[in-house]
Amino acid sequence: MHDASARVLMEVLDGLGTFVFALSGGLLGVRKRFDLFGVLFLSFVVAVVGGMMRDVLIGAVPPAAIANYRYLVIAAAGGLLTFYLYPMVQSRQHDILLFDAVGLALFAVTGTQKAMLYGINPVMAAILGMLSGIGGGMTRDVLAGDIPFVLHGDLYALAALAAAAIVSIGHVIGATPIYPMLLGAAACIFLRLMAIYRGWQAPIAHTGTDKGRQ
Amino acid sequence: MHDASARVLMEVLDGLGTFVFALSGGLLGVRKRFDLFGVLFLSFVVAVVGGMMRDVLIGAVPPAAIANYRYLVIAAAGGLLTFYLYPMVQSRQHDILLFDAVGLALFAVTGTQKAMLYGINPVMAAILGMLSGIGGGMTRDVLAGDIPFVLHGDLYALAALAAAAIVSIGHVIGATPIYPMLLGAAACIFLRLMAIYRGWQAPIAHTGTDKGRQ
Amino acid sequence: MHDASARVLMEVLDGLGTFVFALSGGLLGVRKRFDLFGVLFLSFVVAVVGGMMRDVLIGAVPPAAIANYRYLVIAAAGGLLTFYLYPMVQSRQHDILLFDAVGLALFAVTGTQKAMLYGINPVMAAILGMLSGIGGGMTRDVLAGDIPFVLHGDLYALAALAAAAIVSIGHVIGATPIYPMLLGAAACIFLRLMAIYRGWQAPIAHTGTDKGRQ
Repeated sequence: MHDASARVLMEVLDGLGTFVFALSGGLLGVRKRFDLFGVLFLSFVVAVVGGMMRDVLIGAVPPAAIANYRYLVIAAAGGLLTFYLYPMVQSRQHDILLFDAVGLALFAVTGTQKAMLYGINPVMAAILGMLSGIGGGMTRDVLAGDIPFVLHGDLYALAALAAAAIVSIGHVIGATPIYPMLLGAAACIFLRLMAIYRGWQAPIAHTGTDKGRQ
Repeated sequence: MHDASARVLMEVLDGLGTFVFALSGGLLGVRKRFDLFGVLFLSFVVAVVGGMMRDVLIGAVPPAAIANYRYLVIAAAGGLLTFYLYPMVQSRQHDILLFDAVGLALFAVTGTQKAMLYGINPVMAAILGMLSGIGGGMTRDVLAGDIPFVLHGDLYALAALAAAAIVSIGHVIGATPIYPMLLGAAACIFLRLMAIYRGWQAPIAHTGTDKGRQ
Repeated sequence: MHDASARVLMEVLDGLGTFVFALSGGLLGVRKRFDLFGVLFLSFVVAVVGGMMRDVLIGAVPPAAIANYRYLVIAAAGGLLTFYLYPMVQSRQHDILLFDAVGLALFAVTGTQKAMLYGINPVMAAILGMLSGIGGGMTRDVLAGDIPFVLHGDLYALAALAAAAIVSIGHVIGATPIYPMLLGAAACIFLRLMAIYRGWQAPIAHTGTDKGRQ
């Protein structure tokens, strides 16, 4: 993955994921009645904060989304689209969920790869890859006053972690990076589809009472 | 802006902004019935977290507010004043709003300038300048259990962004920094005054229903 | 503190604090009905985010909890224990509060020491030491949708700050680090015990009205 073409591929995939994530931020912003700035800000947050967290933690500063303003442009495009064409974007929410699965897969896979390029051990690189995928959405939910849905729902973070772990394992066993990256992305997308269409989810603890919910 | 006197000016303006921002943090802390520690902590958060976010993202570590303890002292003074003289500070809340506009302008302008000094491109430097101005208040609101008011209100972030953008444009066209900085600050203060006295605000999206609010 | 044995001691103490903090994160996660991932994530957050904030702010990147995966393993052990043996862990909640006081003391003391090793001035090193102790719990509460309890409760942050300040003062007066570290830890544990058993707390501001609570 040290050659130029692989780097270009990673950037293109990053751009696609950025746009889809921005749509999800924009949708929540409009729904919460944020103003134009709030909607654009939330789009940008979902699109880049996960990667920013990873970059700050691995010492890759300024983070890619600061060093390069194409992330801002892509996120703003997603936010403006949602703001001015909300009913249309809203009606495509199901499609967005599918694209979001692809974005999650790409972010997790490229995030893990980038962490390992910066010398992080494979175990923590997988955690950082997952964080690249879920950090933006978590921050979106906190800013919007909700509990982050990744904490109680729907195999979202675990799908990202599966992708990240496969990339890490591939690195440990010495595979050519592109194969575990493709396999990891496929695993993540498969798990998201199962969560969306079959309701797969992670277990919840037995608290010894049915009234455990606060 | 590379000479010593400009650096001193930036530090003095930073100090003023820090104090006013600390008052706003202290007021919310008292209103939420936080204890003395909570009030001081919130004062410090509003005063320095925006600048800390910027510094971490541009690689200026330790951030100014860590490397130098005068920010802590200034913020603590603002917090203590609010805590022990709450009715008096509270009764001056309108004046504080005006000083806050000045603090916002200063933080946005100096934040943009600092980001460019660290080699950030002008577009993202403007975003970081805005973040310097609004990051503390956003974190204050999240810690206090509220949705950040900058996301749905009142031309606050856009006023900061206008100031930051003017500084960036000045840099691109090669102006002597002090002029775009003064012009940017004036624009920010003007927009805040219009928001406060005339109710200017950013647009909200049409959601195709009057019941869109969650 | 530059010799190997002191470094080993700091690491052992860090490990103990990490485990106890993970239990507190896991308990809140189960109580909020988070799924297995959410519980483990919250355990990890409480255990390491305070130290991560400190490390990012002092320029110690990648932070210890990223560079080394033993923190993840320890936090995951605490989270899994809470998840699968919730009633048992829950019934020991009082004991956990006592261990938590020890963890807080250790984190505050070692966090201050580490910040000074990285050249931070003693005043801000104490603030960063306190942040090492309380940052994880604050983030836990924000993620769980609560106002951070350290802001309105119970001498928690002030106990950490007392420990941190004693370490800083010891440094300024040139004491051998181990003595102020032990004294600081003892002061923190004492204050926590007084808060737990005697209800000691920090003052709340007079707002000039009994209806000040929002």
